[in-house]
Amino acid sequence: MTDARLTFEDFTPGRRFDLAERTLTADEIVAFAREFDPQPMHLDEEAGRASILGGLAASGWHTSAVMMRMLYEAYIRGSTSEGSPGVDRMEWKRPVLAGDTLGGHCEVLDARASRSRPEIGIVRMRATVTNQRGETVALCEYSNMMRLAEKGADHAHG
Amino acid sequence: MTDARLTFEDFTPGRRFDLAERTLTADEIVAFAREFDPQPMHLDEEAGRASILGGLAASGWHTSAVMMRMLYEAYIRGSTSEGSPGVDRMEWKRPVLAGDTLGGHCEVLDARASRSRPEIGIVRMRATVTNQRGETVALCEYSNMMRLAEKGADHAHG
Repeated sequence: MTDARLTFEDFTPGRRFDLAERTLTADEIVAFAREFDPQPMHLDEEAGRASILGGLAASGWHTSAVMMRMLYEAYIRGSTSEGSPGVDRMEWKRPVLAGDTLGGHCEVLDARASRSRPEIGIVRMRATVTNQRGETVALCEYSNMMRLAEKGADHAHG
Repeated sequence: MTDARLTFEDFTPGRRFDLAERTLTADEIVAFAREFDPQPMHLDEEAGRASILGGLAASGWHTSAVMMRMLYEAYIRGSTSEGSPGVDRMEWKRPVLAGDTLGGHCEVLDARASRSRPEIGIVRMRATVTNQRGETVALCEYSNMMRLAEKGADHAHG
């Protein structure tokens, strides 16, 4: 079987992947908050309205987790990703309120070989998450470990 | 009623809060991954063992969400927190495997007044999450908005 997944070599600086749209419901916001971030503005419409967030608002970590899922669908699922060592910057720029529809894109910032593991490269990416008004709600710069193409493997196993 | 919550003034550089221990189960790891990060090493023991993570491993974003809950219990719940504008650095330094017990601490790095909102201060914190062997599994530097004490409010309403 030919492995048609994206490998390290495919992640050239400037390459862009769109994030499919996804609407966040009040129930999802409250369920995540109950488990991980039970601050009042993430649990209750009225408390959210009284806060600077202006309504029932997703925990920033919830927005990040949803972004992760969008990134998975956009390119990680179809790649040789081996996960991430971390995030350089995660900005929650605007509240994400119940009913908001998120979208956006991500792009390759740069890519380099791993010093310790020759079969792996480190791709730096920037994800920009927007709402239905086109406003940026979250910005994330992170690293993604990607396996290199196995030279000749397609022919050997294809 | 006297408001005994921690306010901006209580967050002096170097002040430290311990994080209560919390064990992550395989079921929790898989449930989070199914929703937000369905990469094989977060869903399946065997796929995890075959990966560089060495076992069924929590998504980094799951570790971050659990850290958030630990921070909530440690000090946010009892404070005038108004949420966070973001994270300067989130490092996932070691795998978090099913059955690992997380703990650790957080500490105040610095604190400054908000330029735009005089009732708010910005506290910069560093959270260090460790496992049962005392190894650091995650490190996070983030900002937390905290309301200042309302001068005289305790006497007026107390």
